[in-house]
Amino acid sequence: MQRYFVPASGWNDEHVIVTGDDVHHVTKVMRMKEEDHILCCNPDGHAALCEINDMTNHQVTCTILEWLEDNSELPACITIAQGLPKGDKMELVVQKGTELGACKFIPFEAERSIVKWDEKKSQKKLARYQKIAKEASEQAHRNRIPVVEQVHQLSALIEKSKQYDWKLFAYEDEARTTSFQSLKDIVPEIQSSEHVMIVIGPEGGFSEHEVEQLRAAQFTSVRLGPRILRTETASSYILAAISYQLEELR
Amino acid sequence: MQRYFVPASGWNDEHVIVTGDDVHHVTKVMRMKEEDHILCCNPDGHAALCEINDMTNHQVTCTILEWLEDNSELPACITIAQGLPKGDKMELVVQKGTELGACKFIPFEAERSIVKWDEKKSQKKLARYQKIAKEASEQAHRNRIPVVEQVHQLSALIEKSKQYDWKLFAYEDEARTTSFQSLKDIVPEIQSSEHVMIVIGPEGGFSEHEVEQLRAAQFTSVRLGPRILRTETASSYILAAISYQLEELR
Repeated sequence: MQRYFVPASGWNDEHVIVTGDDVHHVTKVMRMKEEDHILCCNPDGHAALCEINDMTNHQVTCTILEWLEDNSELPACITIAQGLPKGDKMELVVQKGTELGACKFIPFEAERSIVKWDEKKSQKKLARYQKIAKEASEQAHRNRIPVVEQVHQLSALIEKSKQYDWKLFAYEDEARTTSFQSLKDIVPEIQSSEHVMIVIGPEGGFSEHEVEQLRAAQFTSVRLGPRILRTETASSYILAAISYQLEELR
Repeated sequence: MQRYFVPASGWNDEHVIVTGDDVHHVTKVMRMKEEDHILCCNPDGHAALCEINDMTNHQVTCTILEWLEDNSELPACITIAQGLPKGDKMELVVQKGTELGACKFIPFEAERSIVKWDEKKSQKKLARYQKIAKEASEQAHRNRIPVVEQVHQLSALIEKSKQYDWKLFAYEDEARTTSFQSLKDIVPEIQSSEHVMIVIGPEGGFSEHEVEQLRAAQFTSVRLGPRILRTETASSYILAAISYQLEELR
């Protein structure tokens, strides 16, 4: 069934009001009629089966029939902090990361990021990533759309990390040593509702200075298996490993 | 250090002879000289540090200095059998799957595959995928290049699966039920050197008839977490989960 993500302002105890682009989708693309059913997702992560009561060009009013039990959200909240990669790789990170359950993306300007975003480019890119996240959430049958934050500097990212329970960074030198910090000591310890930030470098990896800053801020470096992953593959590995541990093994 | 994959015919006890396109890469791209060192990977999965003795336009002759201990190959051999997806998604499956440690790819024509390959297109595509697998293996510091087989029909795939220790298929209906077959009962039981085949449907998933055929051939359906993954994301999930279990947890 088609699902729509409705902001908090659209909900009351009995009704949901769908507005914006979704109105066109309900009425013109899906050609729905009164008494048809849709799924509406509340920003708190819950979804409700709803019946359409009334449609105008500006809003679709629905009655909540029942709240659904099923929840396909990852139990822990994983933030992917991605050093700006080349080309359209950030789109891949957002799309695949959303399918795999990420709760937030924070792009950051790493020392070795070749791409620089000015203000105008940045706003356009963020709108595009947010759209990709929304479409991937619908496709993956998620109840929440992950947030894509604006581009940070590493210092701002580190400041933000203070609110997190787990702070990790994917350091490719860990994949090359025999005495590595394994995910074994970390991932099985992550509890439901905890917040995890994983910082991933751009194509050229982290500079020594960045590694020092991350370590000083109590980030733990981890390897993601023994192979060297491309920057846009690292987030898929960590999200799949956390999903496997928290949603399949547990 | 640059690594080259040298076929078995290029090896004897003391020397390695690099031929083909790699000669150009060694001499012109890397501009190497006699006494420079390169890494040569044997098809058996071992890598050797080698010193260049002699270079012509057709071959580079090296002495084996030492065999390297490190091995970044997944302990189990995972075959990704991918229902032909649309566009260039198969390229993504091969590239990401190689980084994540797959040992073989078998594209197959599923009932719901929209793309059909004729003989000419097929050969061109396979050559391209094999090149992607080689480049991804170099980048990931793998010792082996995964094999990309020609397009199979499901019946031929099932025939081939008889040689495998584990036969799985990713069935999205499993992600939608509460009584699902979890990876928990399978992945932790996979032993080193075992062969695993995972069959992934195209965009539209498997037909009922295909599901019947797979079940009749003792394939187990699994869910890859509770979210619905796009076809090209499924292989990344299962490979990362197996890597996490076999290379990090164990």
